[in-house]
Order: sequence, then structure tokens, then C-alpha cells
Amino acid sequence: MKPRIVRVNMTDQSIKEEPLPEKYKTFGGRALTSNIICDEVDPLCHPLGPNNKIVIAPGIVTGTDGPSSGRLSVGGKSPLTGGIKEANAGGLTAQKLAKLGIKALIIEGKPRDDKWWNIYITKDKIELQDGAWAHQMGVYQLIDEIWKKNPNKPGIIGCGPTGQRLLKASGIFGNNIENSDPGRYAGRGGLGAVLGSKKIIAIITDDTGGDKPEPINPDKFEKGRIALRDALLKHAVTGKDGGLQLYGTNVLTPIINEAGALPTRNWTKGRFEHAAKISGEATKETVDKCKEKFGDASEGKYAHACHPGCIMRCSNVVPDTETGKAIVSPLEYESAWALGANTEIASLKDVATLNRVCNDVGLDTIEAGNMLGVVMEAGVIPFGDGPKAIELLKETAKGTPLGNLLGSGALAVGDAYGVTRVAQVKGQSLPAYDPRVIKGIGVTYATGTMGGDHTQGYTIAAEILGIKGEVTDKFSLEKADLSRAFQATTAFIDSAGYCLFTAFAILDIDEGFQGMVDSVNAMLGQDVDAVEYGTAILKRELEFNRKAGFTKAHDRLPEFFKLEPVSPHNVTFDVPDEELDKVHGD
Amino acid sequence: MKPRIVRVNMTDQSIKEEPLPEKYKTFGGRALTSNIICDEVDPLCHPLGPNNKIVIAPGIVTGTDGPSSGRLSVGGKSPLTGGIKEANAGGLTAQKLAKLGIKALIIEGKPRDDKWWNIYITKDKIELQDGAWAHQMGVYQLIDEIWKKNPNKPGIIGCGPTGQRLLKASGIFGNNIENSDPGRYAGRGGLGAVLGSKKIIAIITDDTGGDKPEPINPDKFEKGRIALRDALLKHAVTGKDGGLQLYGTNVLTPIINEAGALPTRNWTKGRFEHAAKISGEATKETVDKCKEKFGDASEGKYAHACHPGCIMRCSNVVPDTETGKAIVSPLEYESAWALGANTEIASLKDVATLNRVCNDVGLDTIEAGNMLGVVMEAGVIPFGDGPKAIELLKETAKGTPLGNLLGSGALAVGDAYGVTRVAQVKGQSLPAYDPRVIKGIGVTYATGTMGGDHTQGYTIAAEILGIKGEVTDKFSLEKADLSRAFQATTAFIDSAGYCLFTAFAILDIDEGFQGMVDSVNAMLGQDVDAVEYGTAILKRELEFNRKAGFTKAHDRLPEFFKLEPVSPHNVTFDVPDEELDKVHGD
Repeated sequence: MKPRIVRVNMTDQSIKEEPLPEKYKTFGGRALTSNIICDEVDPLCHPLGPNNKIVIAPGIVTGTDGPSSGRLSVGGKSPLTGGIKEANAGGLTAQKLAKLGIKALIIEGKPRDDKWWNIYITKDKIELQDGAWAHQMGVYQLIDEIWKKNPNKPGIIGCGPTGQRLLKASGIFGNNIENSDPGRYAGRGGLGAVLGSKKIIAIITDDTGGDKPEPINPDKFEKGRIALRDALLKHAVTGKDGGLQLYGTNVLTPIINEAGALPTRNWTKGRFEHAAKISGEATKETVDKCKEKFGDASEGKYAHACHPGCIMRCSNVVPDTETGKAIVSPLEYESAWALGANTEIASLKDVATLNRVCNDVGLDTIEAGNMLGVVMEAGVIPFGDGPKAIELLKETAKGTPLGNLLGSGALAVGDAYGVTRVAQVKGQSLPAYDPRVIKGIGVTYATGTMGGDHTQGYTIAAEILGIKGEVTDKFSLEKADLSRAFQATTAFIDSAGYCLFTAFAILDIDEGFQGMVDSVNAMLGQDVDAVEYGTAILKRELEFNRKAGFTKAHDRLPEFFKLEPVSPHNVTFDVPDEELDKVHGD
Repeated sequence: MKPRIVRVNMTDQSIKEEPLPEKYKTFGGRALTSNIICDEVDPLCHPLGPNNKIVIAPGIVTGTDGPSSGRLSVGGKSPLTGGIKEANAGGLTAQKLAKLGIKALIIEGKPRDDKWWNIYITKDKIELQDGAWAHQMGVYQLIDEIWKKNPNKPGIIGCGPTGQRLLKASGIFGNNIENSDPGRYAGRGGLGAVLGSKKIIAIITDDTGGDKPEPINPDKFEKGRIALRDALLKHAVTGKDGGLQLYGTNVLTPIINEAGALPTRNWTKGRFEHAAKISGEATKETVDKCKEKFGDASEGKYAHACHPGCIMRCSNVVPDTETGKAIVSPLEYESAWALGANTEIASLKDVATLNRVCNDVGLDTIEAGNMLGVVMEAGVIPFGDGPKAIELLKETAKGTPLGNLLGSGALAVGDAYGVTRVAQVKGQSLPAYDPRVIKGIGVTYATGTMGGDHTQGYTIAAEILGIKGEVTDKFSLEKADLSRAFQATTAFIDSAGYCLFTAFAILDIDEGFQGMVDSVNAMLGQDVDAVEYGTAILKRELEFNRKAGFTKAHDRLPEFFKLEPVSPHNVTFDVPDEELDKVHGD
């Protein structure tokens, strides 16, 4: 179908379709969302006011047979950081939008009344539907209800109860392929609250009758796609029965724990003595046990795909050992860390349940886990207390003062309780790698355009896993070049629509990387360079952030990382400011 | 006594005295606090961490017979704005410190344990005393207890329960001359929390045996002092039975209401229909009535001095009409507005009681009133409900989630409840003049080094009251020069130690202004120019803020002032960004 932009204006509830402008012809995914935000959103607008926008875009190759390319990019001005935000997830919606020719869905304006809406997208019409019935409904139930009404199992993204309450820790959920778990979160930056401010609950996409997007150069595309596929299949991490398939991203828990970089007890220690209990291995064991106990009735899974056509299948479904029923899908490394090690909650069931609550109320798990760590440090509940933590997370959906405070994220809670140890950059909580130990990821946290986030420049691949057998010394302080290279390439991959985890394979196998680039160029009929392409995106994002008031002073880690050494290595974050400033230059 | 700096290090509880360094010889008050903060505090430190400092300094002429010169300057990095902060108040302490030769008291470091302290200062010793007994005590009782132990009625400044809880809306109280009301607040910027983070509750200054500071040029000083005194005495606003003596600063309520610039119902209207009920006139009437009813037993007062030697005596004591007992002292215009018009609470008794609660728990009234407006807009309690508002303010002392959230200020509450209409600049709530109507004060709010604050460049004097009979058009957009001139002169006055309200007289009477400048130069044995002196201070404050991450993007009012016209004039804030940027240049 003809590539176009759909613009939903919530001030007057009008819907317009526009051809994709010439200047956006080479864009998809993050390139498109970030450029539209830069072109159309005042960097000084209130993130929850009428002048912010939400832009939703599938990647360039999304919807094709490109392997593991079903990623969705969501952009806006972040209520959490005040800067630009792109959050990215798998799930069903990206491919369906792509098959309907929708390159970007822009939601703008703000209703003047209190009516709630859903957006319904099919081949023949795009319309706003009454969403009152869905208001404050738990997201598991919401997806069930929508699927009951529509047997085509549409893609659904949206904001949960916390997003509808405009809380800054809320993300944008996306549904799974085959069950009602909304665990495909474009979780970061509080974009759920932006969608909530537009009075949109769910965006429902039924692509029945849609077509695969066509490459401009089909032969080149096919060759590229296959080169990438082969690389993914043969790589030990991404391939069949590789680490990701067996243990999911949570394969990292013992590795990062061993490295002494698994932030524990609100970032006061680098190792969690019970790490094994919440690891990917523990998840696999639980799945296997339930399979043994309940047979086919067990809902537990690993090697589970987050979107159709994923080769890596790093997702999972964590079953309840008592019933065999699914608790949550997926339980990822970052979530297991945030809700487990960082809170010292050592029960896989509690951690999976905490993740389920996040999914149900609409919270970002990384923000939620950091918030819990801070709340525990403040003495509100004890470290390690799973049941109490579950109650606290449920509270965020209730509109109480406590719930609203907790749902505002770790920094807000730290401020309210006078806790100075809040691991965040630009207001956004940090993920599962201690930057005092792994310096390069600290450089990414500090300098990335998205605030504290790992996916924007995942130097862990070089510093922990190694590239072509070589591991970059994690303690080395010269990491500006490494972080910059990762940040630029990531911006390209986020635009292509490929999953970031393809990186494990393409960093090791050059043909795979070339295949990815070729497949993108074949789609576009262009000859773009991945790093140049990514660098151009970063440049625009940096420009937005500069206009929003960010300076080099914001490209710093919180003071406590410099003051408090972390065990077992007893190191602080000592990358010089000059090295941080080298990442993006002046 | 020999001018010196006292340095209290809370990391090891050491106390050192240092001679005033040569480079600070011409400094006092704000010049001293701001320069010490710039010289010694990392602009990127956590405001509640060991690397922030609190600097307390009397003005240059404070302690002498300079009229209305008993002002205290308190400086630090603000937890509310993240930038530099100087908050300024009258009361007893400034003159006592000056008479003991203490040019600046620096409190630095941070204890590693949970022990609370008071600082006790006399002519013979400066020591840390156990403060456990005072922890979480209401401030009225605290002052009573200290005065009971020390019949010399020492000056007392400190932080209340909310400051001890490290809440960002907490100020630094100071006691009155003759009663236990701690209403002399260096209230703004959350400096109470900084003091609380140092585990200091009260700083008790007994100047028995101290000496008046001596001018270097006594004749010139005497001439200057008298010229200023005469100007103050003969001016209609500042003189005997002038507006300030009869009605206090709250003389402004009907004036600003008439101008359509009295922010009402959380900044949605420019006039409050019940303004008269919370005005200075209403206060005077209440005092007069109580005097009639209770005779000398009535504690109500106007023409009440906030420190010994004040000529203007704009303070008051608001009595309870049922008992004649004091409710609060003082009730100022900004507080009556914040806790009254902005919340639509139309009862003088309720407003005075709200102010008393702020004083008792340690909150800044401007931040508290804006916070209440936001909470009311969020629907937590109804607009106009005094008793419920009183309960909410009391909650801030209790350490509950609600209390901690409310005590974090209006922006934090707005964020937690998704309220976009939060009147703040750089995180600090705005005072009692709508910038959509009075554009110059908007320029000050936006560009001042202190965040949203009126005292740093009080253009109201020109735009509402008029200078030498001429009123600057409040709607005119060219206000950069006006605001800059006020900002620079104010920095000088805040350094001199004179009360800012001397400005009403010296703007009209040139001899008064010259007398003020002469008195300062006579103290210093220098020949400083007021505007140059003030400009140099602003330059350093701007430098601190730039290093802390502030840019021109932070010199802006919140978006809603541009989007929402305010009645009755139906105007928005339309001063161009270029005009704002002209204030400080590049």
C-alpha cells in the first residue's frame, strides 16, 4: 500500500492522511520518529500539553521477510527527561502498520474534554472509537477484550492505567503474538503518559488485506536478508539453541554478576548473592519443570518469538510452578535485574509477578525497579520483600498520593524522600550495568540522547561479551570512540526496524552486517552508510535536546557514582569529563 | 570584633575560624554568600550531598545603626532549582552575627550517622550541641524551648520538620524580636532541606558582649545613614503611618487585584472576588477590633518591626478574633496571596493559620500556596477549603507519602498528578504577580539567577507603584533594561544588608539612594558603584548556573502562560524570547 503518514489530531478529533514527504523518503523507525519530533515539536513545550506529539513508526524493512525486523519506534518529548525520546519494541503492531503502508502515525493536539478514545486502524478506515470502556482497565484484560471482539488478533499498543494517570514512569505497551501479555513495551521515557495526555488508551491495528512492503531492489534485498539471516542462525548467541533462545536476555544475569557489575540493593553493591535464582537459567529450569509436571497444559516457554519472523526468539513465558499458567511474558534481563537484584528480591515468582504488575498497570520495569530500590532505601518497605513490593506497584494504578508518587519514577521518589542515591541520567533511571565497573556503558548513559539507557549504545557487547573474540577492558577509561560508534550504529538499526540483538551476530560476522545494510539500501533504492545515517539522526536529537536546555552539564552521571566505590571491585566512575565530551564534540 | 569566617564541617564536626580573605573584603550578605558558593561548591554536586554548603552572612552595614539593615543572606545550591540560591530575611540573627564579627558562617560536609545537632554561637565559643531533643519539634515550640534556656533571647535560625525530612519546599526560619513566631523565613529554594541534610536543626546566636561593626569612615557613614533614614521617614510608602506601617506588604492585595494581576485559583484568573477579605486592610481591621475587644491582652499588631532598628516596620501580628492571641507574625502579601487568592481561601483566619502551619513545619509559603493550588486543581481537595488545606500542610511534617510529596513543592505535585499548569521557573514556584499582565516581573521571573522569584528584580515598583510619579506601562514588552537594572541594584542591596523595601523610598528620593551607597562605602572604605557591584554578583551567579546546566532555554516561563489568556485583561505572556535574552546578553 502507498506509503503515507496518518495524522490524528486530538484537539478536534480529525484524522488526515498525507503522502510521505520527499524529505522523509529514506527514513523509517527512529529516523522518522526523531525527525518528525524535531521538525514539529517545540523543544520547550510541556510534554503533557497540546504541543507535544507521539509519533509511531515501523522500521524501514519492517513487514518484509527481513529477519527479526518487526520493531516499532515510538517518539515524543519525554516527560521524564524533558528531552527527545525514542522507545522501541517488538510485538505485533509494527509489521501490521507497515503492511497497511503507514510509515508514521502522528498523534497531536489534546482534547478539551475528558472523553477517552481508542484508534482503530484497518485497511479501509482509520477511526477514533469510544474508549470509555477501557479507561483504567488492566492491560491484560484490555487485550483480551479487544481480541474477543476482533478474531483477527490485531496488534495493540497503548497506555495502561498509569499512563492514563499521566505518570512519568509509564510506558507504551504492545501485545504478544499469541497470548494477552502486553509485555512488548516501548517502556522508557514516560511516553505512556504522553499518549495518556492525548486521551488515547489503545491503538488497534488489523492488517487484514494489507501487503508486504516491496523493496525497490528485490534481488539485492533478498541477498542481504539471507546474509543477515545466515549470520544470525550460525552465531552462538543468536542462533538455534544459542544463549538467547535457551535463556533469553536474562542469560546475562550470571555474566554481569560475575563481572561485579550487577547493581544490587539500590546500587550499593555489584554482586547479588541470589543472582542465580532470578537468572535465565532459573527461568529455563522453571519452564522445563512445568513442562514435565503439566505437559502441554504448561504455558511456560523459552525460544519464544516477540514478533512473527524473529529468528533469535529471545523471549520467554514464565510459568507458575504451582499451576503451569503463565505469569508474565517476557521476563527480560533488565526487568529481572531491576525488580530482582536491585531490590534484593530473590524469588523468580515474585520478580515475574512484579513484571506482570508493571505490564498490567503500564509501567516501565527499569524505572519501576529503580523506584523500588529507592523506596526500600528510604525505609518505606524492606529490601527483599516481594509481596510488599507487589502491593506498592499495584498502588500506582490507584490514583493515591503514594501511587502517583511511585509512578513518577525513581528520581521523583528520591526527591520526596531525600534519597541522594538515585541512579539516573537526565531524570531517567539507569539499567542493569554498573558504570563504575563497565566504564563504556557509563559513557553511553551519560552522553546518549535518550537519558540513562543502555539500548542506545550497548558497549556491553564489546566490554563483556567481546567482538570477534576480543574483549575491550571494561575498566579502561577511553570509551568515547566506542560509545559513539555504538550510538551511531544503533540509531541506524533502530531506523531499519531490525532488532538490536542482531548486533551480537553482525559485530562478529561482517557478511551479516553487510547483509543488513544491503537489505535497507535495497528497500530504499539508496546507498546509505550505516554510521553516517545514524550520526545524522543523533545530530538532530542532540539539536532538539540543546534547544530543550541540555548542555554538557547534563552529560554526567550522578555524583554518588564518583563518591561511592562499589564492591567487589571497589571502583568509582572515573571517566574524565573530557572523555565524555569527546563523544559528541562541541 | 575581628571580621572572620566560621567554618563548621559536619563530616567530622570540626569548627574552624578563618580571617576574612582579602578577596572578600568588600563583600557582605549576598555578595559573600554567592561568591563563597561559586568558589567552593561544585555546580554539579547533589544539593543534599556532602559537597553542597550553606553559607550564612549578615549584610555589610548589618549590626550598625543603618536604618532597616538587619537582613540575613543564606546561600547554597538549591535542591528546588539545581542552581545557586540566595534567600534573604530579617529577624534577629543577622545583627547578632555581625556584632560577633562573623562575616560568614559556612556549614559544609555531611555527617555519616543520624545524629542531629544545633550550633551555638556566643562571643566566647562556637560549638555543636546535641540536637536530638529538637528533632521534628514544631518550630514555635523549638524557639520557646531555646528562649527558656537562654534569657538573652538569642537569634535562632534553622530548619523545621520538613527541612529535617529534606523536602524541597522547606525554608530556613528565623525568629521574631519579641515572640516565638519563626516567621522570618529565608524561605525560598529549599535551603531548609540543605541545612537538614547537614543534620543541623537550629543555629543559636547570643551576641551578649558583642560590638557594633565600625565603619572605616564614620562621618561619611553617619551622613549616609541619616540621608537614607530621612528618605524612608518622609516617603508615603515607607514612612510613619505609611502604607507599609498600616497595612504591611499586604497593602498590595487590592492594588494588584485591581490591576487584574492577582493570580487566583491556581493562576486561572487575575482577580479574586474575595481579595478584600485577606488584604492588609482586613488585617489592620482585625488588629484594631481585637485591640478594642481585648485591650492590651490582644497580641495583634501592625507597624511591627521584623528586626531592631527597622524604620519601616511593615510586619504585623495577626490575632485570632475569638481570643486576641497571635495566630501568625507576619502575614505578608506573598503569603496571603499564595495561601489565599491562589487557593480561593477567603478567610483571613484560615490564611493566617496556613501561614502559621508553614512556619511551624518549616515550609516556604509561596511554594506551599502554589502547591495547594495545584493539589486543588488535581481535585485532591476543593478550592477554597481552608480546613482541608490546613490538614494537608500539617501532613508535610509527618513523613507520609502524601506529606513528602506535598513538601516537595508545586512542580513535584504537578508532575505526580499530571497538572500542566504549574507556575514555576527553574522548578521554583512563582509569587503573587501574574506575568501575563505585568510583563516586567515576568522578565525577572524568567531571567533571574534565582529561579521564579520577585525579590530579585522587583519591577512592580516601576510597573504598578510608579517611580517619581511615573508608572511604566505594565503591558509594554520592552522590559529587559528595567529588569536588568532592578536585578543589579537588588544584588547590591542584598549585599549591603538593607531591606529591599527601602527601594520604594530611594527610587523616589535620590538623596536616600546616595545615602545608602555612601553608608556602604563608608563601611568598606571603598568607592563602589551600586550597579557595577550588583552586576558583578549576577555575573558570578550566572556562571554557577551555566556550569550547573542552565541555558537560555531555562530563562523561559512555562508554556501555559503563552497558551492561556488570563482574565480580566485576557492577555498571554508575549514578551519575545529575544527580549528575555537581552537581560544578561550572551
